[in-house]
Amino acid sequence: MSASERIYRGQARVESIAPDDRGFRYGDGLFETMRGHRGSVPWWPAHWRRLSAGASRLQLPLPPEALVLGEIAALLDGGDGVVRLQLTRGGGGRGYAPPAAAEPAWVLSRHESPPPPPERGLGLRWCTTRLAAQPLLAGLKHCNRLEQVLARLELRGGGDDEGLLLGEEGEVVSAISANLFILRGGRWWTPPVDRCGVAGVCRGWLLEQGLAGERRLDREAVEQAEAVVLTNAVRGILPVSGLGTRRWSPHPRTGALRAALAAAHPAFADS
Amino acid sequence: MSASERIYRGQARVESIAPDDRGFRYGDGLFETMRGHRGSVPWWPAHWRRLSAGASRLQLPLPPEALVLGEIAALLDGGDGVVRLQLTRGGGGRGYAPPAAAEPAWVLSRHESPPPPPERGLGLRWCTTRLAAQPLLAGLKHCNRLEQVLARLELRGGGDDEGLLLGEEGEVVSAISANLFILRGGRWWTPPVDRCGVAGVCRGWLLEQGLAGERRLDREAVEQAEAVVLTNAVRGILPVSGLGTRRWSPHPRTGALRAALAAAHPAFADS
Repeated sequence: MSASERIYRGQARVESIAPDDRGFRYGDGLFETMRGHRGSVPWWPAHWRRLSAGASRLQLPLPPEALVLGEIAALLDGGDGVVRLQLTRGGGGRGYAPPAAAEPAWVLSRHESPPPPPERGLGLRWCTTRLAAQPLLAGLKHCNRLEQVLARLELRGGGDDEGLLLGEEGEVVSAISANLFILRGGRWWTPPVDRCGVAGVCRGWLLEQGLAGERRLDREAVEQAEAVVLTNAVRGILPVSGLGTRRWSPHPRTGALRAALAAAHPAFADS
Repeated sequence: MSASERIYRGQARVESIAPDDRGFRYGDGLFETMRGHRGSVPWWPAHWRRLSAGASRLQLPLPPEALVLGEIAALLDGGDGVVRLQLTRGGGGRGYAPPAAAEPAWVLSRHESPPPPPERGLGLRWCTTRLAAQPLLAGLKHCNRLEQVLARLELRGGGDDEGLLLGEEGEVVSAISANLFILRGGRWWTPPVDRCGVAGVCRGWLLEQGLAGERRLDREAVEQAEAVVLTNAVRGILPVSGLGTRRWSPHPRTGALRAALAAAHPAFADS
């Protein structure tokens, strides 16, 4: 275990993950991947809100917010980086039935800040892996991620930076580890995440700011877009330069969107 | 960690599960829950076959079969019990992309033998949680089990022993932790598991023996069945006595099916 990982059960720090942890056994948990900047997490309220909503939907216990926040501050120690928080239902015997009184397990880890988005923009491809529709889990950043693992395996050996995923009816959902926005008719649009996909924190910020709207999108809509970006809470807004054979030149509206984010959250300002 | 749990990375025994284990982070793994009898696992070839098929589909590395089998024998030490084997892709940084050279992590644990099926038969209910259709994962006993956890939560506080699950088109799939067979027109039938559900080892045995067939089933077919049983590799064939308000009396064909299994595998003979 590296020095930058901290494991907890309930409110106490522990040495290791229990072999009967339900996160390990069933993916019975949630996670958040957060951008840390100068010792804190600018989007913390949104991350905690999503984690709490997920815990409520899965009937998972939560550790106290103040405790988690204090431990994150200690881990960042005034610096920058990426903080990953994973929460599971804790230990729980054999079988799917959760114990009546579950004590949550959680792990914090700190990772290097990501490099700035490539100047050239990201190259994408369509994945053949499709996301199953499960409204009970849609939107959550839960730990059942085999679909994303399979999709990521499709990129192996190719030159693409990311893959775009369709739902089972052929609707566009998102990239593998980012949300998708397209510029069309002068406005940014992103697909809803009510059947599958993750309600990304950067995505949520763009919607709350009125900088984008939600709309079902098909492949043609994406391919005919005036500009395309991917978003996530760690890397911010990432310009897309290609999707299969389709190419996009840098677009002023993409620059404006990135500037709005950088103004709100200096962590996302280009150096 | 209890004395009956053993954790491995690659071919070596280790002390604990790594916090970056991809099973813990993404449910990126598979498991088998097996009935041990007098020091061995009667259905081992079927369990290993399913695990290998799953590993192939997920591009997961496998430890050597002989090593795993030897460790299971040591764990059972000539006795009876339930053996759980979990296999994950091992450690792998942050992000969905699997490392190019993954070293598998695996955990063996031993648990008490289950009690014999209740004399009265099992009481079931229909769950409202539906299984999403994902042909890429269907049939596998993978570690993305949040749907089963949610379904199990539905049973909390009620008197039912198990819940039946529908797929998203209303087709019957299985129970939460068992497969379903119904007797209709003089023959046992079980739903296919090509869109969701697990290809259970006891289910596979019944099909291979020609004792049952595969067929899509709807709710009405189950409710109108002459007899119903659940099956899994740990508990064998479990008679069902009720589903909501529907009641079934003990059926001679259920007894005959259970006797066939007991003859093949004495672990499943009633004491």
